[in-house]
Amino acid sequence: MKQFSVIHNTFVIERHYPTTAARVFAAFSNKEKKRRWHVDGKGFAIDEFEMDFRVGGKEIARFRYENGPQITVDTVYQDIILDNRIVFVYSMRVGDKTMSSSLTTVEFLQAKNGTDLIFTEQDAFFDGIDNVKGREEGTRAALEQLGEVLGNE
Amino acid sequence: MKQFSVIHNTFVIERHYPTTAARVFAAFSNKEKKRRWHVDGKGFAIDEFEMDFRVGGKEIARFRYENGPQITVDTVYQDIILDNRIVFVYSMRVGDKTMSSSLTTVEFLQAKNGTDLIFTEQDAFFDGIDNVKGREEGTRAALEQLGEVLGNE
Repeated sequence: MKQFSVIHNTFVIERHYPTTAARVFAAFSNKEKKRRWHVDGKGFAIDEFEMDFRVGGKEIARFRYENGPQITVDTVYQDIILDNRIVFVYSMRVGDKTMSSSLTTVEFLQAKNGTDLIFTEQDAFFDGIDNVKGREEGTRAALEQLGEVLGNE
Repeated sequence: MKQFSVIHNTFVIERHYPTTAARVFAAFSNKEKKRRWHVDGKGFAIDEFEMDFRVGGKEIARFRYENGPQITVDTVYQDIILDNRIVFVYSMRVGDKTMSSSLTTVEFLQAKNGTDLIFTEQDAFFDGIDNVKGREEGTRAALEQLGEVLGNE
């Protein structure tokens, strides 16, 4: 077995939210709003969450799930078009070990009675630590949570 | 026609170089060596090339091709395993307009009589400015150039 390995995968999730693109976009661009659906969750202890929402700006999240090790998510914003598109790269790490790197494109399209969101993630999973299926499922759950947060605003 | 659009694409290029993984890796990690095959080329005027080769470190290249506009390539290193793997994101921009963002994984595998390189690029091309086919062709040409530079060392 090889010491180092990479699995590449791409997934696309499409969701409709019955509100304006500006409100959906704000749930990604505003730190407090983003935290509500993206970071907070049952069983997670958040040690740090900072974001600098501009092209080249960084976001950092450090958290632990139940009794697990601290996981760090380092994000760098690559492209931002207000109310239309956000592109970012993020890497998940435990200590100095990188579990995965991902390029994510989020498109916000004005649609009848709301906004169509297209979430495309291009992943590289390293050394068998993370898993392909869990990532897509976790992202679906977060986008579901986003819908609930938007509904409660 | 939509004002904003994205095309996602992944390509993989495999190359064999008849030298050690350490030497091929150094052609990516050493600024002067990298410049020789990655930046310099006929018809290109290089305005800036700086690199900070460490996880989280940035690389910036600014160049013009013939009489074209200045193009900026912003790179951020995501994962580095000495002589084994390099992962980076890069975005190409003209002014404040992003043409593309790419997640690139370079794997260096010890092989019989040399090194097998696996170059995987996961691309997002924006608003029809850049093109899928040209990117893969350009990358193939650069990796060919890398072979020549390694042969002449």
